[in-house]
Amino acid sequence: MIACLDLEGVLVPEIWINVAEKTGIAELRLTTRDIPDYDVLMKRRLQILEQHHLKLQDIQEVIATMQPLEGAKEFLHWLQSEFQVIILSDTFYQFAAPLMKQLHFPTLFCHYLKVDKAGKIVDYQLRLRDQKRESVKKLRDLNFKIAAAGDSYNDIGMLEEADVGILFCPPEKIVQEYPQFQVTKDYGELKAAFENAMRHFTKGPE
Amino acid sequence: MIACLDLEGVLVPEIWINVAEKTGIAELRLTTRDIPDYDVLMKRRLQILEQHHLKLQDIQEVIATMQPLEGAKEFLHWLQSEFQVIILSDTFYQFAAPLMKQLHFPTLFCHYLKVDKAGKIVDYQLRLRDQKRESVKKLRDLNFKIAAAGDSYNDIGMLEEADVGILFCPPEKIVQEYPQFQVTKDYGELKAAFENAMRHFTKGPE
Repeated sequence: MIACLDLEGVLVPEIWINVAEKTGIAELRLTTRDIPDYDVLMKRRLQILEQHHLKLQDIQEVIATMQPLEGAKEFLHWLQSEFQVIILSDTFYQFAAPLMKQLHFPTLFCHYLKVDKAGKIVDYQLRLRDQKRESVKKLRDLNFKIAAAGDSYNDIGMLEEADVGILFCPPEKIVQEYPQFQVTKDYGELKAAFENAMRHFTKGPE
Repeated sequence: MIACLDLEGVLVPEIWINVAEKTGIAELRLTTRDIPDYDVLMKRRLQILEQHHLKLQDIQEVIATMQPLEGAKEFLHWLQSEFQVIILSDTFYQFAAPLMKQLHFPTLFCHYLKVDKAGKIVDYQLRLRDQKRESVKKLRDLNFKIAAAGDSYNDIGMLEEADVGILFCPPEKIVQEYPQFQVTKDYGELKAAFENAMRHFTKGPE
């Protein structure tokens, strides 16, 4: 039994929004709701960082002042004692690192930033298109049962491929669009949903 | 970059050998060197447990008195800070649990024991044949670079599929048979081998 978890919004705050707030660069708040094409959005973000002479290390220092969501550490610790946990995120390893350290380095599948020798972020590299969905597929090929939890559109593929898909604090629009997924609103409810999945997986035919 | 690690002999002692010693049941020391057919061996082991009226909980209590190898926790902690770590083992989740707890529950891919309601181990279930090799294949399909380390014959498939394969304290016979893999003899050497793999993976074309 594997638990696949989204990172931002489930265990840690939204990284770009926090970077925008902490650096005072409002334009970094832009999301795929403002610029639907992810590639255009990321290129714009990297351009903004360059305009403000912000290198990777500067951003990492900002991210290091962030903390996991309240209760996230305890929830993750419980989850790891019951499931094999893999975090599936569309963030970048270099950004996630300061937060993963606080979570004791759970296994994370995400993407890489390309950084030059001077520490400037020059590009980003998606390790794999639709990696959340693809990762769940490959894990199922390895005969694992998968319960997955996420909060937004880029999690839907993962929730659809999983044996059990759970929404955690999603926007109302997603709840309406995907009524097939159970909605949970705090870690207590999320824990109960994973416990249900576990019972479902271990019941078997007997 | 993912690090795939064998469990027994790399992070923790051999579980069956310890159970044999701690229960005083010498016959439980049997390994695939004595009975090459794994299925015959496992059935024999389960028979021995039944003859001695040993239930899962009894074995788990014995395993809970075991500890990770000296230095294993520190090594694993370092590895998790540099790689995404997945432990690939042919043990069973129910046996590994007391040791995984001491290692703070890293992600583990292994097999399940079938246990009846009275707590008797009635059978075992290989989640997947040759799961170490297959797991590395699927992770590579997800565009990860893999460095893997193990100590015995059931690790060879995983080392062959990985981008970098490393032997850790292997028997001399394996060193002779598989000269293509770097041999490491303590955690210092193993760490250096993973650091080399990391440099190799991140060098890229630029």
